[in-house]
Amino acid sequence: MVFHPSQIIIRKRDGHALSDQQIHALIQHFSDGSLPDYQMAALAMAIFLQGMDARETTTLTRSMLESGSTLRWPDDGTLYVDKHSTGGIGDKISLLLAPLLACQGVRVPMISGRGLGPTGGTLDKLESIPGFRTDLSESEILQVVSDVGCLITGATESLAPADRKLYALRDVTGTVPSIPLITASILSKKLAASLDALVLDVKFGSGAFMKTLEEARALATSLVNTGTQLGLATSALITDMNQPLGRAVGNLVEVTEVIDVLKGEGPADVRELTLQLAKEVLTKAGQASDGLEDHLSSGRALERFEQMVVAQGGNLGQLPSPAESSELLAVASGHVQSIDSEQLGLVVITLGGGRQMMNDAIDHRVGLEILVRIGDVVEQGEPLAIIYSDDSDRRLAAEEAIGAAIQIGDAATPSNPLVVEKI
Amino acid sequence: MVFHPSQIIIRKRDGHALSDQQIHALIQHFSDGSLPDYQMAALAMAIFLQGMDARETTTLTRSMLESGSTLRWPDDGTLYVDKHSTGGIGDKISLLLAPLLACQGVRVPMISGRGLGPTGGTLDKLESIPGFRTDLSESEILQVVSDVGCLITGATESLAPADRKLYALRDVTGTVPSIPLITASILSKKLAASLDALVLDVKFGSGAFMKTLEEARALATSLVNTGTQLGLATSALITDMNQPLGRAVGNLVEVTEVIDVLKGEGPADVRELTLQLAKEVLTKAGQASDGLEDHLSSGRALERFEQMVVAQGGNLGQLPSPAESSELLAVASGHVQSIDSEQLGLVVITLGGGRQMMNDAIDHRVGLEILVRIGDVVEQGEPLAIIYSDDSDRRLAAEEAIGAAIQIGDAATPSNPLVVEKI
Repeated sequence: MVFHPSQIIIRKRDGHALSDQQIHALIQHFSDGSLPDYQMAALAMAIFLQGMDARETTTLTRSMLESGSTLRWPDDGTLYVDKHSTGGIGDKISLLLAPLLACQGVRVPMISGRGLGPTGGTLDKLESIPGFRTDLSESEILQVVSDVGCLITGATESLAPADRKLYALRDVTGTVPSIPLITASILSKKLAASLDALVLDVKFGSGAFMKTLEEARALATSLVNTGTQLGLATSALITDMNQPLGRAVGNLVEVTEVIDVLKGEGPADVRELTLQLAKEVLTKAGQASDGLEDHLSSGRALERFEQMVVAQGGNLGQLPSPAESSELLAVASGHVQSIDSEQLGLVVITLGGGRQMMNDAIDHRVGLEILVRIGDVVEQGEPLAIIYSDDSDRRLAAEEAIGAAIQIGDAATPSNPLVVEKI
Repeated sequence: MVFHPSQIIIRKRDGHALSDQQIHALIQHFSDGSLPDYQMAALAMAIFLQGMDARETTTLTRSMLESGSTLRWPDDGTLYVDKHSTGGIGDKISLLLAPLLACQGVRVPMISGRGLGPTGGTLDKLESIPGFRTDLSESEILQVVSDVGCLITGATESLAPADRKLYALRDVTGTVPSIPLITASILSKKLAASLDALVLDVKFGSGAFMKTLEEARALATSLVNTGTQLGLATSALITDMNQPLGRAVGNLVEVTEVIDVLKGEGPADVRELTLQLAKEVLTKAGQASDGLEDHLSSGRALERFEQMVVAQGGNLGQLPSPAESSELLAVASGHVQSIDSEQLGLVVITLGGGRQMMNDAIDHRVGLEILVRIGDVVEQGEPLAIIYSDDSDRRLAAEEAIGAAIQIGDAATPSNPLVVEKI
């Protein structure tokens, strides 16, 4: 069959569904460099504006998966599971979930990403630990998963390379927030890891990519349907991201909070969401989920986390000290009405703890602790947040921005449930 | 002001109007190569699907004009006028209009294009004449227009270069038939020729780019409004292209038909449209239009055509003979119901007289004469068309395609008016 890319672009432009052959040819030619970026960019915009149906999304995901290799696990009956979050402020759940699930006897090969924009990146957080490597090779991945039961590392060159190339193009052509393109991007990488079950944490609200529950529901539905269609047991929790998850927002501060939760302490919301996501993916994998709380209170989960850090070259004993801390105090009494979480993410970037451009360096020692939650009653002069920064100008800018982000008013405000629904 | 192309793309993607500064910066950066093709391709698709309002279209046109230089005419009070057609089957009006208008005392610097797809190109037709040059330099253009009063040549490198670059990109990204993009493409080149008046022949029907009257009206309105806004006296005739214009479709055959009309003979529809377009642009330029018919009957227009050909290096005395001719006969009697003109254009390509790819060579000696018009009564065995071809296989394929393109049936069919409305 002759491949006419501009005719395929015109089909999608005019709102028609593409055939499986057309989608497959597009991704194949894009991967091998014979479809130019400008044609893929025009197509991505046409997909953004005209959409793709469930069959097209599934075929796109499969084609992107087939652009690379897949991880091959030993055939010993062990189950492989993972979680993916659409990203939120203070979202450190991956660091907790990997060791916790490993304690339950499943294996967790987490392929994670870096932060760009207000939401931080799991790999950046882990790199607060001196020596921690996030660039494991495929053979190292197989070894660490076999030895420890879990790991968290970056994508290798050979897993879904079409996704890496397409994501870079979408990033500069205004075509990122498209449900079929997001679905194919997330799932092609997860399918390449040859999982038995996957749980998705699809977030909505002021600190999330999807601002409304409806958008989050549409994305979750697409992800669950497509994953299921491609033979991966998939489910999704839709969770509220109108305030940071936990108290810590940054890199080193989040690792410290993770260690607290692994000791059976730390913020209740972080612990609750970790347990719910763990139960969900274990259920999907057909595994029992009793005993999860005990892994935390007994210290087993912390021990597994330490083993993972050591296996990936890290040294928790050499964790640096955080930057100089200062408190931001409430200027008035009242109820916490809302928290603009995206602004808090941007504050961390201002402090030097996140990226504006893909190659920016990160200062892991800066960050925030947000001490209040929506619905809390605060008194004038009570601390709202702790700011970690060695730079007084940046600290002042951060104080102003955090003060504006946390709205305090007279009305009593109900607190929102964290997990809103399951798909 | 900082230039953020992906944010501008997102504005258009989401259906917002772009500012004049944003449009100007986009075209400037695209022209100088600092805006990559993939970002312009995504933007072109967003413009295709979300549109542009009249102000945006005007600014886009002006920015593309300003990407190059403009022709500078001597300040001697002579008026410069031109015509642009959106393209149709058998459309040889430019070859007639340039010398006819020059006889009336205005000057006609026609910058024309080549054929791609079913509609032929004015430059290709003229190149049927041995020696005829269509690559005049800017100084040659000024000289020939001053000496003869008219010329027909290809675009130079320096006139609206952003249009040339953008058109090449649109051609391969499915973004050609967008009214704001077509408007800016046509008018930026015409404005660069520093005209006093412009008439547009916007065609609709089976042999035109725009299939319906409504589409043609929308394009004509955009062209007239934008031209007028930018200080060029512009009007448009909307004309029927549901059957070929005249009898001849090809290159050499069309030149021969042009010479017939310049002698006061030839098909009535070609003569009528030439006169109507001439009157329209003369009126727009504030010039009298009486005496046009006399330029044809007296031979003055033919003489001016011959002068133009000589000035551009051509030799009408050495015009080649057409390829071998054969007649296609009607297999049934009846009324001509419809003529699929686009198919006739494709037949000329099949015969070797048009291009499928931009660099294809053309055989000027092949072509068609269509002997019937919609509404005609034909008898079985009467000739419907003459095919010029030296290749018997291609001639057979042409006969079959023409037979299918000309529908003959029992119902009496009214003939359509050629000029449907004026904008």
